[in-house]
Order: sequence, then C-alpha cells, then structure tokens
Amino acid sequence: MLDLTQDVRDLTAAIVDIESESGGERALADAVERALGALPHLKVERSGETVVARTSLGRGERVLIAGHLDTVPVHGNLPSRVEGDLLYGCGTSDMKAGVAVALKLAAALPAPNRDVTYVFYDCEEVEAERNGLNRIARDHADWLTADFAVLMEPTDGVIEGGCQGTLRAEIVVRGKRAHSARSWFGVNAIHGIEPVLARLNAYQARRPVVDGLEYHEGLNAVGVRGGVAGNVIPDLCVVTVNYRFAPDLSEEQAREHVREVFDGFEVEFTDSAPAARPGLTHPVAAAFAAAVGGEPRAKLGWTDVARFSALGVPAVNYGPGDPNLAHQQGEYVALPKIVESERAMLAWLSA
Amino acid sequence: MLDLTQDVRDLTAAIVDIESESGGERALADAVERALGALPHLKVERSGETVVARTSLGRGERVLIAGHLDTVPVHGNLPSRVEGDLLYGCGTSDMKAGVAVALKLAAALPAPNRDVTYVFYDCEEVEAERNGLNRIARDHADWLTADFAVLMEPTDGVIEGGCQGTLRAEIVVRGKRAHSARSWFGVNAIHGIEPVLARLNAYQARRPVVDGLEYHEGLNAVGVRGGVAGNVIPDLCVVTVNYRFAPDLSEEQAREHVREVFDGFEVEFTDSAPAARPGLTHPVAAAFAAAVGGEPRAKLGWTDVARFSALGVPAVNYGPGDPNLAHQQGEYVALPKIVESERAMLAWLSA
Repeated sequence: MLDLTQDVRDLTAAIVDIESESGGERALADAVERALGALPHLKVERSGETVVARTSLGRGERVLIAGHLDTVPVHGNLPSRVEGDLLYGCGTSDMKAGVAVALKLAAALPAPNRDVTYVFYDCEEVEAERNGLNRIARDHADWLTADFAVLMEPTDGVIEGGCQGTLRAEIVVRGKRAHSARSWFGVNAIHGIEPVLARLNAYQARRPVVDGLEYHEGLNAVGVRGGVAGNVIPDLCVVTVNYRFAPDLSEEQAREHVREVFDGFEVEFTDSAPAARPGLTHPVAAAFAAAVGGEPRAKLGWTDVARFSALGVPAVNYGPGDPNLAHQQGEYVALPKIVESERAMLAWLSA
Repeated sequence: MLDLTQDVRDLTAAIVDIESESGGERALADAVERALGALPHLKVERSGETVVARTSLGRGERVLIAGHLDTVPVHGNLPSRVEGDLLYGCGTSDMKAGVAVALKLAAALPAPNRDVTYVFYDCEEVEAERNGLNRIARDHADWLTADFAVLMEPTDGVIEGGCQGTLRAEIVVRGKRAHSARSWFGVNAIHGIEPVLARLNAYQARRPVVDGLEYHEGLNAVGVRGGVAGNVIPDLCVVTVNYRFAPDLSEEQAREHVREVFDGFEVEFTDSAPAARPGLTHPVAAAFAAAVGGEPRAKLGWTDVARFSALGVPAVNYGPGDPNLAHQQGEYVALPKIVESERAMLAWLSA
C-alpha cells in the first residue's frame, strides 16, 4: 500500500515504480483507491481505473485537482533512479510527480480552506475516446463539479492558463488524369496546390491576449499526398492542415476562419478539439496564482483543461514536471520542483 | 500449327486465341518458331520465348520488322470474336494484328527487295529488365543488325517516328520538425515546395521539330509526399517530377535541363530512358513512308524503338492497331486496317 505520510519525493518514486502504461493502470489505481479510502475525511469513488476523492466540508468554493495515472510505454527506463537532484524514470515528469503532490495534499489536508475534489484518471496518453475524464463526464458529471480546476500536467512549476484549440482539415484539389507523355490532355492536381501553399506561406498567425495571457496561433500543412503512378498526371492532391487556435475562438469560429483562408477550395474538416480560456479571472484562481507565484503564461498545446472548460469549470495547467521531457526515454523530474509544488499548493489550501 | 497461308484477319484471330500474357508466351513462341521453321528461305533463331527469322539474300539493305508476342493479363476478353468489321479480344490491337502482318510477310516474301529480319519477342508489357529485346541486344546483338526497323505497335496505320525520352527526378525540400502547437520552432518542408510548384506552373514546354516531326515535351509533378503526423511540422517533402523530352536531347542533356529548372533545390534522378530520333531521313525509311502513305507524326510516348535507336538502328512505330484501345478490356482491331497494313508492307518490300 502507498504510504502517503512519506516525503513527496519518495512517494513520487514509489508511484513511478508501479508501471501504468495506458490501459494497464489497475495496480496503480487500486493502490491509490486503498490509500485514499483509509482517510476518513474523503469520500472515494471508483469508475474503471479512475479514482475520485472529495472532501465535503460545506466550504463556499470547491477546487478540483487532477492528474492522469497512465504513462506512455516503458522504454527501458524503469525502475526509477535518483541522480543528484533528479529522479529518472518513465512518467516521472508526465505526470507522476504531480500525482504524488495531489496525494500528499489529500492526506495532509483533512480540513482545507476550500472543498477539494481529487481526480486520478486513466488513458490520457491515448485516443480521446478512451480518456477516463471523458467517461466520468458522461457517467458521473456531478463528481467533476467545481469552481476551478488545476490539472497537474508538467509545466515546470509555472501556471499555464487554458489551452489552444486544434482542428485538422483537408484541402482537396482535383484535376484530370492523363498519360504524362501527353500531359496537356490532363489537369495536374499537384500543380494545383500552389495557391494553397502560397496562402499558408503568406499567413500571419494571430497572437491575441485572452484574459491577460498572450496566445500564439499557427496554421500549417502537416501532410500532403498526391500521385497515381510515375507516368500519370494526377487527378487528386490533398493538403492536410492543422490550425491551432486561441481560446477567444469557438471550434465553429475556427472552422469558419479556415474556410475563409482557403476560400474557393474544397475544405473537409476531419477532427477538432476546443480551446479553453485561462480561467485566471476567477477569485479562487487569483488566490492560486498568488500562492504559486511566477508569471502565468498561455498554454499553447492542447490538454485536458479543455474538457473541464467544456463542463464550465475554469482550469489551468500546473505541475512540477518539465514539459520538454515528456515522452522521452531520458525523462526525469527535478526533486526540488516537487517539494516546491507541494509547498505552494499546501499554502493555497491552508491559508 | 499456325497456317501462314490463311487470310491475315483469320491469322490474327488464331494468334489472339493463343493466350500469351507476359511470362506465358511459350505456346505462342513455339507456334511461331514451328511455322517459320517450315519456310526454307528463313534462318530461324530462338532465345527464351523470342524468335528471330532472317532472309540472307545479300541485298544492299536490311530492314527489321518487330512485334512483341505478349499481352497484358486476359480480362474476360478471350476467345476473340468478330462483330462487323471489328475483331475483339485481348491483344488484338496491342499488338497481335501487327504480329500477324509480320508473319504473313515472312511467309509471302521468299525474295523481298531488301533483306528482312523478323523479331517476335517476349515481355514487352512488364518491367524493362525482362524485355526480350534487352536480352537479345545483350546476348545476340548481331541478330538485330539492320538499316531500319519497323516496330508494329498500334499506331492506327500511321507512321509514328521515334519516341520521346522520359526521366523521373525527386525534388527534395528539407525543413525542421516541431510540435504544431509551437510551429515557429520548426521549418515547414511542405510549405517549402511552393516555389517548386510555381516553376512547374510557369514552365513552357518545348515543341521542337526533329527530322521534320514536331514533338511536344512536358514537365510534370507525378507525385508528392510529406508529413510526419497530424501534430508535427514536417521536415521533409518530396515532389516527384516526370520530364518527357524530345529526341534532340540526350538523357544527360535532359537531366541538365531539369537541374536548371530546379536550380537551388536538391534534385535526385531516379530513372530515365532515352528518346529516339524518328529515323525518317534514311532512304529506306523514305521508301517505307511512300508505301504506307499518310502524314508521319511524332511518337510522344516511350516505346521499344528507343532500344533500336540505342543500337544504332533508326526505327519507327507503325501498326494496324488503335493505340487508344491498348490495355482495355474492350480492346479490338479494325479488320480492314490489318489488310491495309499487310498490303502496304508487301508493296514496300516487293516493289
């Protein structure tokens, strides 16, 4: 059983050493459920490999602290090992250090100044439909009720507010096949994407300020395919573009923007995920920012904060891990960052 | 055994009804070898499924008449059948009607006005290295010695002179990978092909006149590939181009031209085949053109005449089939075209 009274650094190592690749989180979820179940001030729920624990003190505000239990596949980087100030191992940074901090808070705060909901969920590192938060939002939306949420993804100990949205679209250019020895009988679809690329090259990405944070959009080709055979004028060429959009746009507004950029071309949207506003204007968030310190910045990548945002819960990313090390074989976390993160959050919830 | 005394239309049907998909020409090659072997004025050679038969009358000129025995795969279009003036079936147009004409000449002309070499070869419809002419040129080059060659590919009964060359090159554009949420840390290789496409779109194809025939070149993208994943700025994009060049250029000159067009880009040549001059300036060719009549035109596609050209033998395409029907399930040949072709060539070699 996980000992929640040990130092947060040792607790992180203990959690890292329980392998929990996406889909294989049961042992870790069981350990978390048992450890939290022993705490009389928490009500513990379980759904699949997701564990939710809540205080019910009747406080005026409720905050939610979330972390995913799963990691990308282990790649010769377990068990964990300490070198100087660094703890190496799969999941150290993304995001078992954050999970350890949350578990420490759960155990150390029988009477926090705000009611707290702790969420430890599964399958964040794989396709969205398997994500444990998706399932909870559908089956037990009341478990996620809160005024503000902190997602303990690696941010190097800085608040990263909201997240940019993302959509993908295919820009389809059609032509007419012909033998390449008599190319003038055809219409070359690959040649036809030149204006698509010209618009991408001329594109000026927006950098809007939303709730005080500056975002940075991007519209890019991420794929191109065309060609039938080495002696055939191709009749189809498809450019796949990815638009990363700031949280002042809805998914529909983002689609409309892409339609405008490629006006006159056939545009097919393939997938999208909404942006999330930073949520730093709420009083409880301001208190959190004061406790954590530092200058909050915009989150440019997409994270699960957008799922909270979609449920009406403002959310930020904040965790001790280093985002640049996520998914790398040499992943590590700086031990002092974990201690600092635990201290800041204890201060926020005890003041 | 093939009866070479029957009408050329019936002989065509008999040959069509001996299946001879590339690699499966043995039955037809055997039948051809036996039929020609019975003619005392011919010396018959065999290599694999290729049959070569020659007169040796000591004439001042030697002409070569060639046809391939193989067809593309049968596709529910055998046995042959006659509807009105049309003979339907796999290989009727490409090119067993031409083979039948050549066999009729071989049998009907014990003392032609020029020495004649008849070549019936295998594996024209598949990759070049299996082509029977390739093998003969390597192992028995003397069998192919001639002043002029007629390749009886389908041309609708019109002389098509020479052939254009073809080469393929990859235009390689490199960039730098980055996460598409922070695209400004990368360099998008797909965006980088815009000037490649601009040059292709601005390209003015030459239409040079060579030995009296107008050719028509073309430089086209036939493939494009790029992209790593839906959230990654791609670091590589490759445009495959196909240059069809007139016979006033060597392969090296054609490569140099492509290098110039894409000056400043990384260009990798992947394959090429030389062009062939039309060969109509030779006296024996002029006599052939007079016998056949009509206005000779340039051959724009690549054919085996280039192999003869490489051996120093001027060659033209001329045959009764319709080139537009080649490789189609509904392939047919117009019976009067076969008769006319036989008549014209008999006149050329008897006058």
